[in-house]
Amino acid sequence: MVRGVGKVAEQIRPFFEPSSIAVVGASRYANKAGHVIFKNLAVNKRRGLLKAELYAVNPKVRMLLGFPCYPSLRKVPGPVELVVIVVPAKFVPDVMRDAARKEAKAIIIISSGFSEVGKHELEEEVVRIGRDAGMRILGPNCIGVFDPITGVDTLFLPETKVLTTGEEYVAAPRPMPGHVAFLTQSGAFGAAALDYMTGTQMGVSRFVSFGNRCDVDEADMLEFLKEDERTRVIIMYLESVKNGRRFMDVAKEVTKRKPVVALKAGRTGAGARAARSHTGSIAGVDEIYDAAFAQCGIVRVRGMEQLFDVGKALSMQPPARGPNIAVITDAGGPGIMAVDECVLRGLRVPELSEESKAKLRRLMEKGIIPPFAAIGNPIDLTGSATDDMYVEALKVVLEDPDIHGVIIMGLHHVPALTEVYVDRVAELAKEADKPVLACDIGETELAIYMRRRFDKLGIPAFESPEDVATAMAALVAYGRYLKKEGVLK
Amino acid sequence: MVRGVGKVAEQIRPFFEPSSIAVVGASRYANKAGHVIFKNLAVNKRRGLLKAELYAVNPKVRMLLGFPCYPSLRKVPGPVELVVIVVPAKFVPDVMRDAARKEAKAIIIISSGFSEVGKHELEEEVVRIGRDAGMRILGPNCIGVFDPITGVDTLFLPETKVLTTGEEYVAAPRPMPGHVAFLTQSGAFGAAALDYMTGTQMGVSRFVSFGNRCDVDEADMLEFLKEDERTRVIIMYLESVKNGRRFMDVAKEVTKRKPVVALKAGRTGAGARAARSHTGSIAGVDEIYDAAFAQCGIVRVRGMEQLFDVGKALSMQPPARGPNIAVITDAGGPGIMAVDECVLRGLRVPELSEESKAKLRRLMEKGIIPPFAAIGNPIDLTGSATDDMYVEALKVVLEDPDIHGVIIMGLHHVPALTEVYVDRVAELAKEADKPVLACDIGETELAIYMRRRFDKLGIPAFESPEDVATAMAALVAYGRYLKKEGVLK
Repeated sequence: MVRGVGKVAEQIRPFFEPSSIAVVGASRYANKAGHVIFKNLAVNKRRGLLKAELYAVNPKVRMLLGFPCYPSLRKVPGPVELVVIVVPAKFVPDVMRDAARKEAKAIIIISSGFSEVGKHELEEEVVRIGRDAGMRILGPNCIGVFDPITGVDTLFLPETKVLTTGEEYVAAPRPMPGHVAFLTQSGAFGAAALDYMTGTQMGVSRFVSFGNRCDVDEADMLEFLKEDERTRVIIMYLESVKNGRRFMDVAKEVTKRKPVVALKAGRTGAGARAARSHTGSIAGVDEIYDAAFAQCGIVRVRGMEQLFDVGKALSMQPPARGPNIAVITDAGGPGIMAVDECVLRGLRVPELSEESKAKLRRLMEKGIIPPFAAIGNPIDLTGSATDDMYVEALKVVLEDPDIHGVIIMGLHHVPALTEVYVDRVAELAKEADKPVLACDIGETELAIYMRRRFDKLGIPAFESPEDVATAMAALVAYGRYLKKEGVLK
Repeated sequence: MVRGVGKVAEQIRPFFEPSSIAVVGASRYANKAGHVIFKNLAVNKRRGLLKAELYAVNPKVRMLLGFPCYPSLRKVPGPVELVVIVVPAKFVPDVMRDAARKEAKAIIIISSGFSEVGKHELEEEVVRIGRDAGMRILGPNCIGVFDPITGVDTLFLPETKVLTTGEEYVAAPRPMPGHVAFLTQSGAFGAAALDYMTGTQMGVSRFVSFGNRCDVDEADMLEFLKEDERTRVIIMYLESVKNGRRFMDVAKEVTKRKPVVALKAGRTGAGARAARSHTGSIAGVDEIYDAAFAQCGIVRVRGMEQLFDVGKALSMQPPARGPNIAVITDAGGPGIMAVDECVLRGLRVPELSEESKAKLRRLMEKGIIPPFAAIGNPIDLTGSATDDMYVEALKVVLEDPDIHGVIIMGLHHVPALTEVYVDRVAELAKEADKPVLACDIGETELAIYMRRRFDKLGIPAFESPEDVATAMAALVAYGRYLKKEGVLK
C-alpha cells in the first residue's frame, strides 16, 4: 500500500472522526473494559456529542445500555468505519477478518497479550490482515483515542472510583477541548496526563495511546496533526521511535507549521532496560535522539512537568526571535531566581539598553514607578508595585528591540497590586510580537486565581521561577529553529 | 559581647517566645504595616494563642483595637522583651535607645530605608545601639517572624485581598504548625513560601525573614534551631552567607542532628548582579558555596519546588544508607521515568538480587502478583495491580539488604487499586529503617486525595517522577554525609 502525504492523514482521520463505530467485546459487566468503553460512547451518543453510528458486538447479549447488540461484526446492519476490539488476543484475528469484510478503515485493538508478552506471530498475523485489507491499526495493548469534540473515547479506566467508605472521587477524568494534541506510547502515562491536564485546565485537541504500535505510529499521527486545525501544539511521550527516517522527514514538515514537544523516556541505562521490559522497544542511545530531535525542530523536554509547561507556553505564545529576556517583578528574591533559571537554560538577561533605562528613569521622575525601584534587569518594582507600574514597565521592554521575551514575575502578595493588572498585561502582550509569560508563587486562593486569569487571557502562567524559565527557553529554542529554517524572519 | 554556644540560642528565643511585645508604630490606618502587624498580634492575643503581654506604641493614638496605646516605649507600664519597629527609618535610632532603657532583648526592624538604599551610617548606628545594650536585632527591611504555636506574627502582608469586584480571596496565608523551619533572606519569597506551604499542607515550626541582616544572621538562627524540639528540618533561601567561617562551624553541628536544606540564589552572573541590587550582598562564586555546603552536610537544592520537596522528604523519612533504589509501580511509562530520574541524580536502580527475584516468582506462582508482571527493577505490577500486590512487593524490597530506599510509583487510575493500599504501605514503611516515598500523577480529586493520605500517614507523596527522585536523592545524600561523619551506622 502506498502511503503518500495527505493519503496518510485521510487514513488516520477515521480514528477521530468516524461515521460509524462498532465495539467488539462490548460487555454488560461494569468492571470490564468492554463495558466502560461502550458506555462512554453510548453516553456521548445520547448527549448528542458523538455523531457516529454506534454498534455493540457480543454474541451473548441482545441489548446493551439501550442499544441493540449484534452477535458479530458481519451482522451489523450498516457500514462500520472504526472497529474497537476488546476481546481476548487469540480471537482478534477473526474479528479483523470480519472487519475486512465490512470494509472497515480503522481498527483500535485495546486487548493486550501480543508482542509485549512474546506473542509476535499473533501480532504479525493481525498486521497482515490489516495491511491486506487496507485497514489501519492502532495498538494493540493501548488505551486508544480520546477526542473531546467528536466524542470518540476508548479510555477504559473508570472516570470515577468509589472508595471503601462509599465516597466517590474523580479518578481518570477527561480534559476540556483545547489546542494541545497528546501522543503517548504509555497508556498509564496517558491516563495520568489527561488527569493532569484536566486539573490544570489545559485543553486537549486529540489524544492517542499507541501501545505496541504494530501499525499506526507517531509519524502517521504527526502527519494527520500537521493539517489538523484544532491542534496548535503536539506533545508526546516516547520510549523509542519506530521508523527514524520517516519520523524525521514528517517531523521536519510539521515543526515548520506548529511546535512539537517530546519527552523521551529510557534515557539512562537502567531506564532503557526498564523500557525494554515494558514495550519491548529498544530505547537506543540517548544522544542520537538529542541530535535527531534538534535536527527536525522538535523541542525536547526532560521531565513530566516540563512537557506540560512547554506545551502550554508554545500553544499560547509566539516563539522568541532571540535569547534576551526581560524580567519584571515586585519580589526581589523570586526575581533573582528567575534570572538564574533563565541563564542556566542558555537564555540571557542583559542589562537594559540606555534608551530603555532612560525611559524608566523618566517614569521615576514622574512618580509612576518608585525612586527605589531597580531598573537594570530584572526591573524590580518592589513591594510598592501597582497595576500601573507593571503596565508602564512592560511597555518599555516590549518597545526595546534588544529584548526578545518578557517574564512577568508578579507576586500577588504585595498590597497595592490588583487583579486588573492581569488584564492590562494581557492586552499589551496581545499586540506584541514577542512572548510574554507570567509567574506567581503560592498554592492558596489568590495565587491560583491570578494564574488562571493569566491563562484565560492567553498569557501562560507558571508556579515557580524554574517553570517559567523552562517555558521561555522552549520559546527561544523553537524561535531559533524557525529562524534557521527561514520560517521566522 | 561574648556569644558562646547556648548563649546565642537564649538570645534568639525572645524573637519567638517573648514574655511581652511592643509594636512601635502601631497604626489605625488599615493599609499600614503598623496596623496589620498590631492587628495580627491583637487577634492572636484575644484568641488566647499569644500569651505574651502586648503593647501598642503611637503618640497620636490612645486606644487601638481595644488595647491602650502608649506615646512611647518608655511609657509602657511593664517590661518589654520584644520590640517590633514599624516607624520611618530616621526615627529608628531613637526607638532603639528607648528599647535599651526598657532593657528589651530582641528587636525586629520591619522598616526599610537603610543599607539597601545606601543608608549605611544609619544602619551602623542602629547596630551600635543594639550591641551596646545587649539587644539582638532582626532586619531591618524584613517581614520578621511567624511562629504558629506562640502566635508571634509580624507579617504585614494582607492575609486576604478584596478584588475590584468585591470578592475576597486568601492572599498571604499562614501555614499550620509543623516541623519545618523556614529561613529567608527575601521577604517576598518568604511570603510566597508561606503561601505555598499553606496550599500544600506543609506545616511550619518557625519562620524568619532576615532582610538586611544587620545583626541576627542565619548562623544565629541555626544555633537556635539546633536545639528546637519543634523543628525537624531547616530549609532556607539565601543570596549570600554573612560570616562564612561561623556559618560552617554552626551548620556542621546542626546537620549532625537534623537536616538543613539550602536554596542559594544568585548562582549565575546575571543572578548575582540582580542580588547585588536587591540586598547589596555579594553573591560570590557559586562553586565555593557548593563546596562549603557539601563540607558541612547542607543539602543544596537548585530550585524552589526542590526546596519544598526535599524539605518535606527529610522531615518525614529517615536518610538512606546507600544509593540503591527499588521502584514499585503499576504504570510502565511512569516507572521508566522514575528510573531515569533517579539515575540522572546519581542514584542506582539495580536489578534485584536473585533472592528477591525468587521471592517475587513465588508470589507469581501463588497467584498473588500476575504472571506478566516485571520483576526486575522497577517491579511493574501492571494495570492489574491490587492493594495486596503492592504490600507483598514492598515486603520483598524492604527485606532486601541491597536496597536502600523505595519509591512507590502508584498511579491510582488502575481499576483494582483502593485507597487502603496507602495505609498498608505506610504501616510497613513505619517499621522499616529505609525511606519510602510515594508518587501519584494527576491533578484532580483522587490523585490529590491519595497524595494527601500518604502525606498524612508519614509517607511523603510527590506529583511527578522527577520530584520523587529529587526527594530520594536528598535522602541518599544526607545519609551519605551522616555515614561519613559516623553519625549513621
